[in-house]
Amino acid sequence: MRLSELGEFGLLAELERRGLVRALDAEGVVLADGVVLTQDTLVEGVHFRLEWTSWRDLGYKAAAVNLSDLAALGAEPEVLLVSLALRPETDAERVVELYAGIAESGVPVAGGDTTQAESLIVAVTAVGRSGRVPGRAGAVPGDAVVVTGPLGGAAAGLHVLREGLRGFPELVARHRRPPLRLVEGRRLARVAHAMVDLSDGIAGDAARIAERSGCRIVLEPDRIPRAPRIEEVADLPFWTMGEDYELLAALAPADAERLDVTVVGHCAEGEGVEPADLAGWDSFRPRG
Amino acid sequence: MRLSELGEFGLLAELERRGLVRALDAEGVVLADGVVLTQDTLVEGVHFRLEWTSWRDLGYKAAAVNLSDLAALGAEPEVLLVSLALRPETDAERVVELYAGIAESGVPVAGGDTTQAESLIVAVTAVGRSGRVPGRAGAVPGDAVVVTGPLGGAAAGLHVLREGLRGFPELVARHRRPPLRLVEGRRLARVAHAMVDLSDGIAGDAARIAERSGCRIVLEPDRIPRAPRIEEVADLPFWTMGEDYELLAALAPADAERLDVTVVGHCAEGEGVEPADLAGWDSFRPRG
Repeated sequence: MRLSELGEFGLLAELERRGLVRALDAEGVVLADGVVLTQDTLVEGVHFRLEWTSWRDLGYKAAAVNLSDLAALGAEPEVLLVSLALRPETDAERVVELYAGIAESGVPVAGGDTTQAESLIVAVTAVGRSGRVPGRAGAVPGDAVVVTGPLGGAAAGLHVLREGLRGFPELVARHRRPPLRLVEGRRLARVAHAMVDLSDGIAGDAARIAERSGCRIVLEPDRIPRAPRIEEVADLPFWTMGEDYELLAALAPADAERLDVTVVGHCAEGEGVEPADLAGWDSFRPRG
Repeated sequence: MRLSELGEFGLLAELERRGLVRALDAEGVVLADGVVLTQDTLVEGVHFRLEWTSWRDLGYKAAAVNLSDLAALGAEPEVLLVSLALRPETDAERVVELYAGIAESGVPVAGGDTTQAESLIVAVTAVGRSGRVPGRAGAVPGDAVVVTGPLGGAAAGLHVLREGLRGFPELVARHRRPPLRLVEGRRLARVAHAMVDLSDGIAGDAARIAERSGCRIVLEPDRIPRAPRIEEVADLPFWTMGEDYELLAALAPADAERLDVTVVGHCAEGEGVEPADLAGWDSFRPRG
């Protein structure tokens, strides 16, 4: 079967079934003593285009998407490893800019490697330490489901760039510079039963918790906070489209009230995510 | 300046000078409590061609080149993270084969991510623990310089594939399936003053020790062990061309005698590597 049919998650499930990859119950790898690792790759033409991003913003984003996974693990970041594939004719000053963007994340780069390729690829591994990793598997019926901020800004910002619209700088910024929810992540990690970051779209991300936890997640779309002005950009469900890099957690309702988060649903007996028409994102399938 | 002029090491030096990357004094990143990390990327068309390797061998090699770095760090491997960029039309069975090759390294895959791209890229991060990391900076005049096995087999094997020669299966195997020197690495790490793996070519790899240690490395080419039959393949200095993934260490001569290694030179006062005509490999420059 082709990957385009099987999908990224289908491939992973098949690899787990054959014992070739350990099933991952969190947004990264958790070693025995609280060392956590995440890895994410940005590919030119798939995840970014150099017409729409500066090298500096690209560096920042490559760091941020990994730090978002660390946030979901409740971790304090320690170092980044950066692996770049670059065209040989690339101006070295561009690469310096990219590293300057990474440095703006505040986490030091402690190594990595550089290789030549026909397209630009930025692979980052983030290393941190976490006192408690909520993982994906601990949500229980009765839990509140919360998010740390408004959704839809990143997808609307990308739409603005794609269509060459003007007048939405804050949405474009949201696409180029995802938020770092590290402090919120550590605060949530102390009490959350499950936590992921919102990279693929809230339906797909919630489904990862529902599946691993063996519960049903009931989202209330009207309660999901939307980034300002996204409805002016186009009549599209940007808030379902992912890449906002806010955190999504399941926790006791009393804990949800204490923290600076927005309740967007709850966990119930059963399986899957409700309502069913919140389409997720799968990196091998065309986006809806 | 273009990367093709500056070179990979020039780029790294510039990034270090600007404080954007921490200077790396070992083959990977060493965290406070002995956790070590390495990252290496194989790019289709640059590091491999699918006409010359099976997906299974490719998986093995992607694991092995990282485990070679762990070996140089004296580490016991713990997990691998695998990040793949794949064409959407790829048959999923090929990817399963690739993972099966990785699994043959004996180290479990604990996560990673998969993304689409126009060429195949395999990025692996290896995590391990080391009781003592020799690093690159501790070699002193009077040290013996040793290697763990014969050189030239991998480059000769690649030449066999490139030229479509027949009758050298052991050299082709050496190219496709680098050795895992993990046990030797841990043994050497207890006493070595500096250690690297031989990926770029012995001159360039020795130069990394010489530069960081502030000494001169005098190699005796006649003492460098060569893989059998490489001289039958072509009249080329395959043993200088790298990718053999043996270990190169500097240590006290008495320790070198005790261990199963071959002395190929020594450290002296001064700088650089002697003889000067052992050309290294730089991934942005054409190979000599």
